[in-house]
Amino acid sequence: MSEQYLKERDIEFLLYEFLDTEALLQRPRYREHSREVFNATLLTAQAIAEKYFANHYAKGDACEPTFDGDTVTLIPETREAWKAFTDAGFLAAHYDFEEGGMQLPEIILRSAMAYINAANVSSAAYPFLTLGAANLVRSFASTELKERYLPPMMDGRYAGTMALTEPDQGSALADIRTTATPADDGSYRIHGQKMFISGGDQSMTENIVHMVLARIKGAPVGVKGISLFLVPKFIPAADGSEATRNDVQLAGLLHKMGYRNTTSTVLSFGENGGAVGYLVGEAHKGLSYMFQLMNEARIGVGTGAAVLGYRGYQHALQYAKERPQGRLPSNRDPQSRQVSIIQHADVRRMLLMQKSYVEGGLALCFYASSLFEDAHTAESESERQQAATLLDLLTPIVKSWPSKYCLKANDLAIQVLGGSGYIREYPLEQLYRDNRLNPIHEGTEGIQAVDLLGRKVPGNDMAGYKLLVEAIEKTLRECTGNSTLETLADALKNALSQLNGVTENLLGQMIANTDRGLANASLYLDTFGRVVVSWIWLRQAVIASRKLHAETAPSDEEQNFYRGKLQAAHFYIEWELPEIQPQIALLQSGNPVPFEMQEDWF
Amino acid sequence: MSEQYLKERDIEFLLYEFLDTEALLQRPRYREHSREVFNATLLTAQAIAEKYFANHYAKGDACEPTFDGDTVTLIPETREAWKAFTDAGFLAAHYDFEEGGMQLPEIILRSAMAYINAANVSSAAYPFLTLGAANLVRSFASTELKERYLPPMMDGRYAGTMALTEPDQGSALADIRTTATPADDGSYRIHGQKMFISGGDQSMTENIVHMVLARIKGAPVGVKGISLFLVPKFIPAADGSEATRNDVQLAGLLHKMGYRNTTSTVLSFGENGGAVGYLVGEAHKGLSYMFQLMNEARIGVGTGAAVLGYRGYQHALQYAKERPQGRLPSNRDPQSRQVSIIQHADVRRMLLMQKSYVEGGLALCFYASSLFEDAHTAESESERQQAATLLDLLTPIVKSWPSKYCLKANDLAIQVLGGSGYIREYPLEQLYRDNRLNPIHEGTEGIQAVDLLGRKVPGNDMAGYKLLVEAIEKTLRECTGNSTLETLADALKNALSQLNGVTENLLGQMIANTDRGLANASLYLDTFGRVVVSWIWLRQAVIASRKLHAETAPSDEEQNFYRGKLQAAHFYIEWELPEIQPQIALLQSGNPVPFEMQEDWF
Repeated sequence: MSEQYLKERDIEFLLYEFLDTEALLQRPRYREHSREVFNATLLTAQAIAEKYFANHYAKGDACEPTFDGDTVTLIPETREAWKAFTDAGFLAAHYDFEEGGMQLPEIILRSAMAYINAANVSSAAYPFLTLGAANLVRSFASTELKERYLPPMMDGRYAGTMALTEPDQGSALADIRTTATPADDGSYRIHGQKMFISGGDQSMTENIVHMVLARIKGAPVGVKGISLFLVPKFIPAADGSEATRNDVQLAGLLHKMGYRNTTSTVLSFGENGGAVGYLVGEAHKGLSYMFQLMNEARIGVGTGAAVLGYRGYQHALQYAKERPQGRLPSNRDPQSRQVSIIQHADVRRMLLMQKSYVEGGLALCFYASSLFEDAHTAESESERQQAATLLDLLTPIVKSWPSKYCLKANDLAIQVLGGSGYIREYPLEQLYRDNRLNPIHEGTEGIQAVDLLGRKVPGNDMAGYKLLVEAIEKTLRECTGNSTLETLADALKNALSQLNGVTENLLGQMIANTDRGLANASLYLDTFGRVVVSWIWLRQAVIASRKLHAETAPSDEEQNFYRGKLQAAHFYIEWELPEIQPQIALLQSGNPVPFEMQEDWF
Repeated sequence: MSEQYLKERDIEFLLYEFLDTEALLQRPRYREHSREVFNATLLTAQAIAEKYFANHYAKGDACEPTFDGDTVTLIPETREAWKAFTDAGFLAAHYDFEEGGMQLPEIILRSAMAYINAANVSSAAYPFLTLGAANLVRSFASTELKERYLPPMMDGRYAGTMALTEPDQGSALADIRTTATPADDGSYRIHGQKMFISGGDQSMTENIVHMVLARIKGAPVGVKGISLFLVPKFIPAADGSEATRNDVQLAGLLHKMGYRNTTSTVLSFGENGGAVGYLVGEAHKGLSYMFQLMNEARIGVGTGAAVLGYRGYQHALQYAKERPQGRLPSNRDPQSRQVSIIQHADVRRMLLMQKSYVEGGLALCFYASSLFEDAHTAESESERQQAATLLDLLTPIVKSWPSKYCLKANDLAIQVLGGSGYIREYPLEQLYRDNRLNPIHEGTEGIQAVDLLGRKVPGNDMAGYKLLVEAIEKTLRECTGNSTLETLADALKNALSQLNGVTENLLGQMIANTDRGLANASLYLDTFGRVVVSWIWLRQAVIASRKLHAETAPSDEEQNFYRGKLQAAHFYIEWELPEIQPQIALLQSGNPVPFEMQEDWF
């Protein structure tokens, strides 16, 4: 395959220059590994991505899953991809050796998944969801459940799903109506309907394990009465004899704009007496368990959005270098040769904008993965705690910023190609359709905004926010004495000070009137995201500047690489960051125009 | 059909309050008409739209045109729609009575087309293109050609296309390579390939008339050597006997992301000796002729984009009113009733943003149509000239602003529905896919930007720009004495003054260095568009305010209508206009970051 979906040089930069992934080798959990092991893992992922996932990206879109009333059929390549991924052990890569895993760091698994997602995001959803579901079982299920379900979820015999949403309740999890009734054998009988369940049915794995939120009869109302259940499609027999079909039925497939090779399903539980479900963890604590999965999934959504944007950018870049068309405005000679379209200033602007979005987004997500890693394996309890707190604050940004801006990158990539970008003969329109899901699933942008301003920022006495400010200030100090970096740092410093001011003001507005204080939360989310990504770019610029001024001058190719990073940092901080100004003004004044709009006036 | 795609009240407001369409009845050409005739025409269009176009909007997407190597097949509903539209006489509605037309004003024809486009934009493309091609024939072709081709293009026996783009040249029309060789009989033989030709083949009309740009052998290079040819698919026999198949072959269909029921074709001319073509007008003047069609098409693209956004907005609005989900942040009682999602501040923000985009965009396009009308039928030569000059300036905005922001409205509509917005079970994702074409065809956004800053603004000693400034200042004066309107007017006045400053600066930059001065033209286009649309909204606000303060108080329903317009004007001017600030700063400084980005740094 001539097309490189995710350039190794960028991944290497993120892992070993932007982050210090090698330092993980000092931690007890990773002492037996080496940078070579990490790289070999990624090479394997890349090879699988190119051979088994990229090959049916377009086909899975054109020939989406079908349901004949009995069986869901996927194109056969999907199963081959699943098998290649699971046979390579990736479903268990982050498990300890003694659990049968490879004991690899989170960031390496995420990088591996990035290759897979870049190649085919909708076939990648099956392993992605299974990883998440298995993590839930591993963290919270009883030993018995773990012994029964985890091994086949680690080796690819079983797939997993997360079943939260219901037709009438959407994102309002407090209003879940699916019920769980205790049975004599200690299990439960589940009744209800779930909607938009990705991977909710297929026939490529032996079994599907649904992680289902439901309400035990008599439970408290609201989110404090929700429990988590493991509901398998087939109930395995304890003695190894044939499994029994559970009372989970596919009510129908939904037909998405993109992401088509991932089934989206409506599932009926208990239409014939009750689906057998097993309580995971304690009763009524289901939502907090599910949030572990959700938070992991949110980093995954951000990363997925970033790599879709990245792939589109690479395609548009290559096209712009190769496609001759027109002449510069200053050239009035119609007999002169046409220039490649990258020579047109506006095409260059669109490409640089894409670069700032997709490389900024990917760096943000990789940073989030490193925080996840630190939260679990950093040496001291306080380091682990700090990483967890900061990640908690940043999760709404990590989920929503790439979903918004890397989709916009796909939009710009289409625009670079013009008419060719709009037709299915080129991959860009599919990337755009696929990526459009990301601002919706795992919590819409509006939900992330309220989560950020309403909970994550004020929560824990603003501990996360304070850590972020400290981290940004540390980077600002690293810029001292370098005039180029100082200009960028001053812009960020100024923006941070404005963010501090508006944050304080909004928290005050919320005390006076919660609804009104939160009304413009989406603006705050966008402003916050621009400040964070400016910081991410400044950190990359610091590294690039250091490398360019190193005693041993880098090769020409390396110089170009770092100059590109510097230019993208300039672009982001000079073109994108200033857009917070009008937003800050609206937030500071608590502009009430949308809030006061009446239903009857529409 | 319960869904109203384009609300009559909004069209009525635009035609008879925002514009003074009734005043047209004073002009000699329209003296025999009445407001009742106009309204009856629109009712007919609405009925045809709902009965014959809306019925296969989704089907035309799911069952796109196919080509078996011989014939292109469309779903049969397409032909029924074409027939209903043409049988009602719409293809000739704007022609004079003596030409066999209805002598209706442009604005009425455009309003009629708006209903059709809202119902099914891709089936509407066939009549839309035919109207444009026929206008070219009518304006520039010889009497003989007109007599032969115009009647069947007016009654629907023939369809029309515009064939500009070639595979290797894209938007760079100067580099057209299709050739025309004179034949003994005064006609030409056309050789070459055209790409992205919408409606380039189908089997629902008796014939297809391609308006083809080609270069006569020996013509000057560049745009001054391009001529316009009429190339029919079938050459009608002079004696009425069977027509001969011309040497125009369908090389293949292209498969678009949306707009699928409009064929997009690659056409080969002259593979078997030469396609017969007839010169339209004078040799080497083809591009200027084609620009008449192009300018009309650009208003059409803007209007099409606006109505797609409008339809999506209406759908999202209805959904938001009906769908209960969640509670306000201030309500901690999980047992309280859920609210409809329009009660959530962020949903209201997304709806108001859509309203400001789609009603602003539609008003802008209707205003442009009224300028088109004035340019042709205003009483004095100077009025006609002024209207033409102002329309010429505004055309890049009329084409690009709705294409950008009404697509964004579709994006927001999807977001209001969440998961349901993303699936084909609801119409929003199709509207979004269909609308994505509009920033591309008839000149991309980048092309509009260079056209605006490089030609339209400086051209004719800035006559168009000066007229716009005068028109805006007139509206500003109308706001004096009304405190609400004055606040909005002050904001616009300030923005206009900044636009004036940056325009002067950029024209200076362009003299110093054309390429660099034009490098940030897209930013200028966006800034310019925001100022123009703020003015369009202020004009609507002036009317709304006047009606709300009229001696006879309007009905409750009418009050709500005008309050909505006022609130949307506030939203646009308070939330959207200020985004020009950072753009103006970048333009003023001539920020060079994208311009100086090197190809090797990407």
